[in-house]
Amino acid sequence: MSLVPLPSSIIPFLEPYLPREKNDRPFVTLTWAQSIDSRIAAAPGTQTKISHPETKTMTHYLRAYHDAILVGIGTVLADDPKLTCRYGNFSKIRPVVVDPAAKWDYSKSTISTLCQELKALAPIILTNREAEPLKENVELLQSHGGSYRALQFLLEYEHNWIEVLRELHACDIKSVMIEGGAKVINSLLVSENLVDSVIVTIGPVFLGKQGVEVSPPAGLELQDVAWWRGTTDSVMAARLITLPEVEDLDETTE
Amino acid sequence: MSLVPLPSSIIPFLEPYLPREKNDRPFVTLTWAQSIDSRIAAAPGTQTKISHPETKTMTHYLRAYHDAILVGIGTVLADDPKLTCRYGNFSKIRPVVVDPAAKWDYSKSTISTLCQELKALAPIILTNREAEPLKENVELLQSHGGSYRALQFLLEYEHNWIEVLRELHACDIKSVMIEGGAKVINSLLVSENLVDSVIVTIGPVFLGKQGVEVSPPAGLELQDVAWWRGTTDSVMAARLITLPEVEDLDETTE
Ligand SMILES: NC(=O)c1ccc[n+]([C@@H]2O[C@H](COP(=O)([O-])OP(=O)(O)OC[C@H]3O[C@@H](n4cnc5c(N)ncnc54)[C@H](OP(=O)(O)O)[C@@H]3O)[C@@H](O)[C@H]2O)c1
Ligand SMILES: NC(=O)c1ccc[n+]([C@@H]2O[C@H](COP(=O)([O-])OP(=O)(O)OC[C@H]3O[C@@H](n4cnc5c(N)ncnc54)[C@H](OP(=O)(O)O)[C@@H]3O)[C@@H](O)[C@H]2O)c1
Repeated sequence: MSLVPLPSSIIPFLEPYLPREKNDRPFVTLTWAQSIDSRIAAAPGTQTKISHPETKTMTHYLRAYHDAILVGIGTVLADDPKLTCRYGNFSKIRPVVVDPAAKWDYSKSTISTLCQELKALAPIILTNREAEPLKENVELLQSHGGSYRALQFLLEYEHNWIEVLRELHACDIKSVMIEGGAKVINSLLVSENLVDSVIVTIGPVFLGKQGVEVSPPAGLELQDVAWWRGTTDSVMAARLITLPEVEDLDETTE
Repeated sequence: MSLVPLPSSIIPFLEPYLPREKNDRPFVTLTWAQSIDSRIAAAPGTQTKISHPETKTMTHYLRAYHDAILVGIGTVLADDPKLTCRYGNFSKIRPVVVDPAAKWDYSKSTISTLCQELKALAPIILTNREAEPLKENVELLQSHGGSYRALQFLLEYEHNWIEVLRELHACDIKSVMIEGGAKVINSLLVSENLVDSVIVTIGPVFLGKQGVEVSPPAGLELQDVAWWRGTTDSVMAARLITLPEVEDLDETTE
């Protein structure tokens, strides 16, 4: 499966939203493809074609600027993705999977096959402290150069992102492209001041009520909005409105 | 409240989607403004600013090509809208309200004030056969030149649209712009072969889970898709995939 060429107008369009150096945590790009009715899949646990192949190339182009790609376990189980970068010089990118209960059978995955063939970097799998990954998977992952890392996950997903990013920072990951699924996106959108760029591809289809929905628990505004118009899709790039630090808020409560 | 100028690129963009003559029923344009997460209001019963003023001008420009504007009673109660056309030579357009239970107190509405001042055409209000509109409203509406019309509404909204369009056809309405709200849009999207053009403005905001959602009960595809990129919004124009007539389907079942 080779990629179609990158439309050249995508390069200046994305330029302002590419990762910049940050000190405290990795730069976070949040990106997904959705229908008009903001569904990212036609039904839970399924993968759905939503957008034009050129936006798939865009995704791989974007990946080339990041150290890591992160997805939730729901996406890994539904899509068995490669999580590689197939744009340009095929730069190696680190897959990160948020899998609190260690549900993923790594040894049976496409990613582990790619690692076996030295075609990909081995993943970091973030589990909950209580989880016990299969010994076979721990050993295979280690032999590939990846690792399980145990975190203290809280029940409310939005409270875990700061921990996740701290862990990635400790692994020397300076930028991460977060690609879904819905639970990841919805909780991250309302995690204050953690997302730097948001890039959403909107494909001209309605997936309907039964689809997997992206909509954060609360409303939020965007800034520095730009749109790119493709053959069939529209792509929005934006930054989240950055909230003032708590100290600043205090100053204006009088 | 005057309108901002119409961006000139909107004219060729919309041209292919404007009403054409139809014999059997009015030409139907379905249009709304939504957030990225396909919400048309931040909460039930409220009106929310989603898009740039230029797309409001676009709405009025589109209205100028239609004989009528239709909305559901939910929208009338939430927004108390004018439903007039304020673009160009302010052509008169007929408001149509789907109000099965005759909940609308017409005499207290902005529309009735406009009619009193001869600034608007009086509405057609479509009620259920069993409904009993207030005598005061019946008389006032009649004096303004409007009318209540009783239909046999069924429980499933999608089964009523063919009746509604038949009634408008009988009223010599050749084109209708259907503008919401969510229940109207969702049921109309899955009413086979009744919608001619769909025009959706997407504003760069997330309204969140509590918002009023547009998503049809089942998925559907679009064709002849075009996108217009505004100052802050993206506008999609498309046609619904037209299903073959039942006879054609029969021929291919062998
Ligand atoms: N169109 C697109 O761009 C796109 C992209 C990606 C995925 N998808 C689709 O999205 C669907 C999957 O979405 P999904 O919402 O079901 O799954 P998901 O977001 O990929 O994964 C959700 C799971 O990951 C864990 N998790 C994620 N974030 C967490 C956090 N902050 N804290 C603790 N645990 C966290 C939880 O696992 P536990 O439940 O085990 O605790 C959670 O149930 C699939 O159908 C896939 O095809 C579409
Ligand atoms: N952003 C936008 O473009 C936009 C545009 C319009 C409205 N809105 C927002 O949308 C919200 C209102 O949406 P909504 O879904 O609550 O109301 P709605 O769709 O305007 O009206 C729904 C009601 O109208 C009647 N109805 C509509 N279609 C029918 C059908 N086919 N058959 C029988 N009855 C039908 C029913 O009345 P009964 O329940 O009495 O039977 C139904 O409950 C408001 O917040 C408004 O601001 C936004």
